[in-house]
Amino acid sequence: MQKLGKQTLKFDRPATILETACIAGPKEADGPLARYFDKCIEDEMYGEKTWEKAESKIIKETVNTLISKSGIAPAELEYCFAGDLLNQCISSSFGLRELNIPFFGIFGACSTFVEGLSLASVFIDGGINKALCTASSHFCSSEKQFRFPLELGNQRPPTSQWTVTACGSAILSSTGQGPFVTSITTGKIVDMGIKDANNMGAAMAPAAFDTIMTHFKDTGRNPSYYDAILTGDLGYIGRDIVIDLFMKNGYNMKSVYNDCGVLIFDKENQDTHSGGSGCGCCASVFSGYLFDQFKNKKIRRLLLVATGALMNSMSAQQGESIPGIAHAISIEL
Amino acid sequence: MQKLGKQTLKFDRPATILETACIAGPKEADGPLARYFDKCIEDEMYGEKTWEKAESKIIKETVNTLISKSGIAPAELEYCFAGDLLNQCISSSFGLRELNIPFFGIFGACSTFVEGLSLASVFIDGGINKALCTASSHFCSSEKQFRFPLELGNQRPPTSQWTVTACGSAILSSTGQGPFVTSITTGKIVDMGIKDANNMGAAMAPAAFDTIMTHFKDTGRNPSYYDAILTGDLGYIGRDIVIDLFMKNGYNMKSVYNDCGVLIFDKENQDTHSGGSGCGCCASVFSGYLFDQFKNKKIRRLLLVATGALMNSMSAQQGESIPGIAHAISIEL
Repeated sequence: MQKLGKQTLKFDRPATILETACIAGPKEADGPLARYFDKCIEDEMYGEKTWEKAESKIIKETVNTLISKSGIAPAELEYCFAGDLLNQCISSSFGLRELNIPFFGIFGACSTFVEGLSLASVFIDGGINKALCTASSHFCSSEKQFRFPLELGNQRPPTSQWTVTACGSAILSSTGQGPFVTSITTGKIVDMGIKDANNMGAAMAPAAFDTIMTHFKDTGRNPSYYDAILTGDLGYIGRDIVIDLFMKNGYNMKSVYNDCGVLIFDKENQDTHSGGSGCGCCASVFSGYLFDQFKNKKIRRLLLVATGALMNSMSAQQGESIPGIAHAISIEL
Repeated sequence: MQKLGKQTLKFDRPATILETACIAGPKEADGPLARYFDKCIEDEMYGEKTWEKAESKIIKETVNTLISKSGIAPAELEYCFAGDLLNQCISSSFGLRELNIPFFGIFGACSTFVEGLSLASVFIDGGINKALCTASSHFCSSEKQFRFPLELGNQRPPTSQWTVTACGSAILSSTGQGPFVTSITTGKIVDMGIKDANNMGAAMAPAAFDTIMTHFKDTGRNPSYYDAILTGDLGYIGRDIVIDLFMKNGYNMKSVYNDCGVLIFDKENQDTHSGGSGCGCCASVFSGYLFDQFKNKKIRRLLLVATGALMNSMSAQQGESIPGIAHAISIEL
C-alpha cells in the first residue's frame, strides 16, 4: 500500500467485497430500501426477552446469512472486525461469540462499519485472504442507552435522528471481481463544540467535511470522480451542513452527494425527523442497496464516509461537547 | 507478513517499539512497579471535577509525555489506536480529541493495549512509518461503570480484582533498534459460561490458555523460547487457572509465566484481593516495567498476552455469561 498525502492509503492489492448481507427491523421494512435487505424482522424483540439480546441475534443471523450466501466456510474467514453502539460493544461480543474466528473489537460509534472495512482492507493488502466486517444498531437498545427509556414516551426534537435497527456485514477477499476497496481516508477526531445530543448531524458534519476534503486533497480527486459520495449517517440537517461547507470551499456536491440516514427512511410517510442514524444505518444501506447497485453496475465509484459521534450519555451530563469522526473508503469496480 | 497456522501473523518488517510512557494513580504509586512509571498522580481526581475527566486527562498527559520523550513531532504519527473501559470509549475520545491524528477506536476490554499494538504492527508491516497505541483505565470510573458507586462502600469478594488507574502508551516505528513486534496471535472469543462479574480472572483464563496454546502450535515454540510470558490481567486466580490448564496439557509454565495484575500490586501490603485489572494494567506494566527490562537487556523475548472480559453491567443483570478474549504479541530484541 502507498500513503497519499496525510491520511489516505491506496492499496496495491485492493480487497474485493465478495458478498454482503443485511437484516433490518420493522420500521426499516416500511422504508424505501426494504427490498434490498436479506430479511426484515417483524418486531424489535425478534423472539428474545430483551432488546440487547435481540440485537445480538440480529448480528448472529446476519453473519450466518452472509456465510451461507457467500458459500465460504467459516474456517476460511481469518479475521472478524466488529462493533456496535451498546456499552462495551456487547451486541457484537455476544452475537459473535460462537463464530470461532480471531476477533478485533472496534468502536467508532456510527463510523464503525467503515472503520472495520478500512482495517480489513489493510490486512488483505498485507497478505491475508478473507475477513469479515460487521456493524449493528438497534433503535430500542440505543434509545435506552443514549437517551431515555422508550416507556417514558419522551418527545423527540426535530433535529433528532432515528437509530436504525439493522446489521450489515461484508466479506472482504484478496481475490474476486470487485467491487474493490481501492483506498481509505481515516478520519481525525473533530470537535466543534456542539453539545446538543439531539443534534448529532450537526456534531458530526464537520468531521465528514474534514475527511472528504482531505480525501480530495490526498488523491487529487474532486466530487465528479465519483458516481456517489455517501455519508452515513448525518441525516437531513447534517447533510445540509456538509453541502454548505463544501459550497463555501468552492465545491458543488449537490449532484453526487447524499446521506445513508436520508435514504433509509421515507421523509413524508415515516416520522423520523432528521432521518436515520446508528452503525446499522450505513452498514445496512451499503450491504443492501449500495452493494446491489455495484452488482448491477449502476454505480462504479463510491466514496462511503461513515460518521460517528464519540460521546456517551454521561459525557453529555457532564457538560462535554460531542467529538465527531468520519472514515472514508473508495469502493470501485 | 506471513500467516503461521490459524491465528498468527509473522512480520517481514516488524515494528520497533520506539518509546513508551506511563502515568499511574496513587495506589499504583505505592506498588512495587512505581519507579518505572513516568509520573504518579497524587489523587484519583487529578484536579478534575469527575473521574471520567480525570481519566481523559491521564491519557492526554501520557501521550504528551510520550511524544516529548520520543522527540517525534506529533505530525509524524500517522495513526492512533486507542481504547478504554468506559461506555463508548469516551476517555480515549475526549483525551485524544486535540491530537489531530487519524484515529482508530478499538475495544477489547482489558485486551485493548495489545489489540492496538497488533493492529499498528500490521499497518507498519504494510508500509506506514509511525503509529501511536494507548490504553487506559481508572479505578473509580470503572467501579462506577461496571459494579457499584464507590460511595456505597460495597464489600469486595476475595475473587475480585482492583482496576488499575493508569495509562500506558507506545510509539511503534518502521525503523529502530527494537524491541520488535515479531508476530501477533489474535484471539477468538471464548465463553466457558462463567457468570460471576466478580471473578473476571476465571472468565478470561480459558481465552488466555487458548491463545497461548494456539501461539505455541502456530509457531512451533514452547514456553522455554521466551524469557517471560505475561498475561494481563488475570490476577492470582486466573493465573493459577492458566498454570493448571497448561499443566494438564503437558506444559510447565511456572518458571516463565506471570500476570501483569499480579506484578503491579503488593499482595501483602495492598488490599487488592486477586490483583490488578483494567486495560491500564497491562498497558502500564508494559510501558513502564517491561519496556525498561528490554532497554536494559534483562529480557529479550516476551510473549505479552492481554486478556479482556467482553461484558457490561447490563449483560450480567440479564443473566449472560462473560465472554473472554486474549490477544498475544511476541516482542523480541
